[in-house]
Amino acid sequence: MKYEFDLAPLLDKLNKLEVKTVGLVLPEGLKMYADYISSEIKKQGFEVIVSGNFNYGACDVPDPYFDDICDCLVNFGHAPLPLESNIPLLFVEVNFVFPYMDYLKNNLDLIKKEGDRVGLISTVNYVKELPKVKKFLQSKGFEVVIGEGDNRVAYPGQVLGCDFSSATSISDEVDFFIFVGEGRFHPLGVAISTDKKVFAFDCDGIYSLNDYKDKILKERFGAIFRAKDSKRFGIIVSSKKGQKRMKLAKILKKKIEDLGLVADIILMDEVSPDKIYGFDYDSYIVCACPRIGIDDAKRYKKPLLTPKELEIVLDGKEEYVLDEIDQSDL
Amino acid sequence: MKYEFDLAPLLDKLNKLEVKTVGLVLPEGLKMYADYISSEIKKQGFEVIVSGNFNYGACDVPDPYFDDICDCLVNFGHAPLPLESNIPLLFVEVNFVFPYMDYLKNNLDLIKKEGDRVGLISTVNYVKELPKVKKFLQSKGFEVVIGEGDNRVAYPGQVLGCDFSSATSISDEVDFFIFVGEGRFHPLGVAISTDKKVFAFDCDGIYSLNDYKDKILKERFGAIFRAKDSKRFGIIVSSKKGQKRMKLAKILKKKIEDLGLVADIILMDEVSPDKIYGFDYDSYIVCACPRIGIDDAKRYKKPLLTPKELEIVLDGKEEYVLDEIDQSDL
Repeated sequence: MKYEFDLAPLLDKLNKLEVKTVGLVLPEGLKMYADYISSEIKKQGFEVIVSGNFNYGACDVPDPYFDDICDCLVNFGHAPLPLESNIPLLFVEVNFVFPYMDYLKNNLDLIKKEGDRVGLISTVNYVKELPKVKKFLQSKGFEVVIGEGDNRVAYPGQVLGCDFSSATSISDEVDFFIFVGEGRFHPLGVAISTDKKVFAFDCDGIYSLNDYKDKILKERFGAIFRAKDSKRFGIIVSSKKGQKRMKLAKILKKKIEDLGLVADIILMDEVSPDKIYGFDYDSYIVCACPRIGIDDAKRYKKPLLTPKELEIVLDGKEEYVLDEIDQSDL
Repeated sequence: MKYEFDLAPLLDKLNKLEVKTVGLVLPEGLKMYADYISSEIKKQGFEVIVSGNFNYGACDVPDPYFDDICDCLVNFGHAPLPLESNIPLLFVEVNFVFPYMDYLKNNLDLIKKEGDRVGLISTVNYVKELPKVKKFLQSKGFEVVIGEGDNRVAYPGQVLGCDFSSATSISDEVDFFIFVGEGRFHPLGVAISTDKKVFAFDCDGIYSLNDYKDKILKERFGAIFRAKDSKRFGIIVSSKKGQKRMKLAKILKKKIEDLGLVADIILMDEVSPDKIYGFDYDSYIVCACPRIGIDDAKRYKKPLLTPKELEIVLDGKEEYVLDEIDQSDL
């Protein structure tokens, strides 16, 4: 894997903003460059404060603790979300390099079996590759669609861990999807929210998400079943600005209490198993990042449900709906 | 172990404050009571938001994330520090029950060997036991001193993990100390900062901190030695209000840079090994809670020094001085 980023436009912007102290926010994979990036910014005469917190996305704005010591925050590796901040937020996008195109060329026969109409999806670190992939697939006779997402999505074809609108918006027009990027959660989200076959890449080549989707849905219905007899619910809200679904949490709390059950809202920054361990609620609803309840559920000893899964528990709804963040829930 | 706390005075205070929503902040050991405490507060007509974050003391005020949804914060298990907050801070002290008195009675011969003049120290959860211990030891012929601490300490004889002033203030007047409480860090701090013998209790009875002090000091000088050739230092500051020694961090940064070395200030909420792991600095200075560098140092792959230990690295000072938080460093 190789990361590509260009500091020149950032340094230009910092000079124009006339800031003095810059807060530097890096996701885990880029923390190793903190001292290099900091030294480049300091060479231009700025002061730097590095954030040591984990950073999971543009939703994760640590400004309350930085606004009294920094004049702006620079986030690497993500694209902006429609969020307000006490101090200016700048974004440096980082492109990842990965030989997905070779894998695609070697597996054309496999994907041709699924149909002629393909939707392309990606994450911000690969989204600029999509036009290239589109051109290649068109040259092989495919009809290629790249969907527009809602206002939380910066690029056509981009999906977030909490927003699959650029896939659902074109689901009816395609036979299957190809995810250009890494990791399983984003293509899984597309597979669940569109119910179409999704192909993704790993170091062995190309694979379909179908089996993984079946496995995860079984796990989710297991958690839903385990939560059925819960009397006391902890409703977890993250203080991360783009995940803080307090309005939704209050609606869920009232819904639970109206059924004569107990609910408390639990506010925390990072959601992690060791922070929940000490509490004594029967089940937890995660109103923070939708990935937590699904990717990390097995690390928690008590059932961890998404807000949509709670509806299955309380109302007996049967259809599985993936949790996504709606700007109006914040 | 048994915990004792009384909710009636808290409910009185909440009624007088005329608040609507109460933020509940509990250390790990008390999180199991969150649903009970919440239900008692809700019975009085208040709304409750439970903090899911770890809480390590009165230094750890999460108000930036609670002040827009809560009208006050209630912290259980600690005594107030001189800190400002955006919303009122209330404290409910929790007393722990532990059969230290039996252990003391059974070990009078052991402590008598150390002299007649004894200083008593404790943490907030046991500090109300000190007059009882004083009376008992006086009846056995000891001269007993309980020291006054500085303005960060709420009770005579109370020590914090970052403030041993109630011990150092009487060190010249006593032959040895007895620590009434649990855990090794607080009596260790007294042993290092006073250089007097300190006795503490564990489930086997009473023991001296001498061996542990020697072990820890060897480890600390090991870390200091490993940090000697560092070129790039990460200076860790916690955003926790009572630990945020940003002024000190800036002084250390300048000191390191004046020697032609590299230093960056890294701001984070909770300090933990996994947050540091991704960075590529040679050594780290912890300006957060002084316990982190000492209690947890082995969990970090790079040397973790206290600000006082950095002085040994940079200036070649020989005497080991324990790190304590001075209100003027914040």
